[in-house]
Amino acid sequence: MALNKKPVTGMRDILPEEMAIRDYVVGIIKETYGKYGFCSMETPCVESIANLTSKQGGDNEKLIFKILKRGEKLNVAEAQSEEEVVDGGLRYDLTVPLVRYYSNHAAQLPSPFKALQMGNVWRADRPQRGRYRQLMQCDIDILGEPSNLAEIELILATTTTLGRLGFKGFEIRINDRRILKAMAQYSGFPEEAYDSIFITLDKMDKIGLVGVEAELLGSGYDESCVRRYLELYRNLEEAENGVSYLAQALEGVLEQSVSEGLQEIIDNVGATKTADFRMVFDATLVRGMSYYTGTIFEVSIPGFEGSCGGGGRYDRMVGKFTGNDVPACGFSIGFERIILLLTERGFEVPCGKKIVYLVEKGVKGQALCDVMEKAQKAREQGAQALVVRMNKNKKFQKEQLTAEGYEEFVEIYREALKQ
Amino acid sequence: MALNKKPVTGMRDILPEEMAIRDYVVGIIKETYGKYGFCSMETPCVESIANLTSKQGGDNEKLIFKILKRGEKLNVAEAQSEEEVVDGGLRYDLTVPLVRYYSNHAAQLPSPFKALQMGNVWRADRPQRGRYRQLMQCDIDILGEPSNLAEIELILATTTTLGRLGFKGFEIRINDRRILKAMAQYSGFPEEAYDSIFITLDKMDKIGLVGVEAELLGSGYDESCVRRYLELYRNLEEAENGVSYLAQALEGVLEQSVSEGLQEIIDNVGATKTADFRMVFDATLVRGMSYYTGTIFEVSIPGFEGSCGGGGRYDRMVGKFTGNDVPACGFSIGFERIILLLTERGFEVPCGKKIVYLVEKGVKGQALCDVMEKAQKAREQGAQALVVRMNKNKKFQKEQLTAEGYEEFVEIYREALKQ
Repeated sequence: MALNKKPVTGMRDILPEEMAIRDYVVGIIKETYGKYGFCSMETPCVESIANLTSKQGGDNEKLIFKILKRGEKLNVAEAQSEEEVVDGGLRYDLTVPLVRYYSNHAAQLPSPFKALQMGNVWRADRPQRGRYRQLMQCDIDILGEPSNLAEIELILATTTTLGRLGFKGFEIRINDRRILKAMAQYSGFPEEAYDSIFITLDKMDKIGLVGVEAELLGSGYDESCVRRYLELYRNLEEAENGVSYLAQALEGVLEQSVSEGLQEIIDNVGATKTADFRMVFDATLVRGMSYYTGTIFEVSIPGFEGSCGGGGRYDRMVGKFTGNDVPACGFSIGFERIILLLTERGFEVPCGKKIVYLVEKGVKGQALCDVMEKAQKAREQGAQALVVRMNKNKKFQKEQLTAEGYEEFVEIYREALKQ
Repeated sequence: MALNKKPVTGMRDILPEEMAIRDYVVGIIKETYGKYGFCSMETPCVESIANLTSKQGGDNEKLIFKILKRGEKLNVAEAQSEEEVVDGGLRYDLTVPLVRYYSNHAAQLPSPFKALQMGNVWRADRPQRGRYRQLMQCDIDILGEPSNLAEIELILATTTTLGRLGFKGFEIRINDRRILKAMAQYSGFPEEAYDSIFITLDKMDKIGLVGVEAELLGSGYDESCVRRYLELYRNLEEAENGVSYLAQALEGVLEQSVSEGLQEIIDNVGATKTADFRMVFDATLVRGMSYYTGTIFEVSIPGFEGSCGGGGRYDRMVGKFTGNDVPACGFSIGFERIILLLTERGFEVPCGKKIVYLVEKGVKGQALCDVMEKAQKAREQGAQALVVRMNKNKKFQKEQLTAEGYEEFVEIYREALKQ
């Protein structure tokens, strides 16, 4: 039976040109984050189904690739439901596994623990252009650091990495979940309405102030609350410093330490950054995941719609595993989007000399040894050296090799070596 | 509900110390194989269940982690068998995916295609010490090269990589499936018995010539065949050059090109190798996978029982996907075993200066900016710089950091900065 040549639905093979870029980016990321003291760590791609369906993953929990039980534990004929036949699933993010890992190994880990994870995650999304069911994620997290030193380091490390990859003029937007809540509270909305209000607020960049106002009114919220809420956002557009404005306007509702802490992050990153980007306060930034408890941030790169990464503070997730909360803050860069951007820009991976030894058919014995010897020498001296048999259509073969980046050709013939 | 802190059965979390070694080894592998012109490539971790159960994977096919269908395609309550509820599985090796990939993309790939794959594979083995259900594999393959240039390049690239990782005095054993067959044919065994004979032969290193003889006789094979067969192996032990001996002894049964080709590989690798290892012909080498068609080889490292990698030629596997055979030859190094060996040897990853900035609680504003500025400068100059809050027990904290390899400490106090 002929086998199936295509990858499974929604997943893809990665061709050598893209892989060269990916390998290069992984190298830069590991090297740069390493300089900030982030340690590589890894968890299995498979997690227990109980951990994956514990409500930490939001909508991603609907998209899990589930793994069938094995051996005697499996009885398909008698099973009535999915739960009876599965025991694991492919992870849909790196945050749940990180928190499980930290809970399991905290005693053996540095404190605070600065973690770097690069790994695939899987989501059974509806297949669509540019969106794949297996994707690489790249997360850095700091566990055990309650102060905003964590946020400053995460943002500096991430932006330095993006800078080293050649990105310029990008933007880090920052907000705080506690500011979002204080603004809603100040406006008089009931607490149980906050999440739904934030979902509407999140559309600000698409529908604008007027659109948000209309949607909130349409949802039946009290008109005076909506007015009061929107007035804050209108004033923010005029304010010279949004954080200071809100610190004053929300006095008594917003803790002073929140606005001070946020301002310190913005000032410190602005003063010590090495990459070319702007750091801005954005009171409309929501970020979907419900586990965030404090600061939230997102990175936007010009020429790419949507975010190219983001993160925030989630101080109460470790407690779900251990019963004891541990301060935690993370930043995930959109690895696949960055690769897409670099590919579209025709990014070329820096590399050394590339030589081809074209060996005529029939060159063998000592003559072939001599060729291999030369190639080995070239490699030791740092070159990339390819030894291939010469094709009948040598011109075409050399054109192909030139397209692959080979620039120097050494041709070895039987005759020449017989002399 | 408290969540499960442990990884799933048979899989493991990887701690930072080991990850540092893994990252380093991955870097050396990619760099070294790159110099030989191998291109990185990647396939999804999930393959269609049909491809995984196509009899290319031998016993591994019994160990597949299977993936449940999703949405409307799944009906657990009515299903009677596994086949009805699964559509994919986690790959158990990188060879089947490689061949699928090549079949799908050959027109866009260099010819010959020198592929480097590093990725996880999964096998639901019975959990046991040192053997895990998720493991990293590292394969190089050359597709489209019929001559032994492929074998020579694969062995040189692999041994150079092992040498760069500090391994010395190791051994590459080589044989050819066609020699195994010719020896069995010469001895008069019926062709249908070959596979079973090779399974016995494979135990030579454990049970010796006498044990193999006894087991073959015990299996009921003709005594004269067994004698003739064992005589070849006894003579090989005395022979100065095993390949030459067999070329003569098997004249008329073994094609001359096989022994010539094998001798050329041994001579060429011997003459051009850069690492410290021995290349030996071993007529008892079998290698389990039935897909091998020609040369087979294995690497043994002193201090480690069993092989640390191996490979061979499999010229008829692409044809299973496309109908047209393509010459193929591969070498897989035992990544997990190499990491284990390096870890046991206390391998230390080379790294630059490691500095810690210990910041007293309460240092903030401009004072904190100054610290971050210094750390950023140190990183730009190549150091690994950690900025952490000073603990109450500073002595213990510094001991911990020293154990993590930090050697320089800069302490920043509120008072000092107020001046």
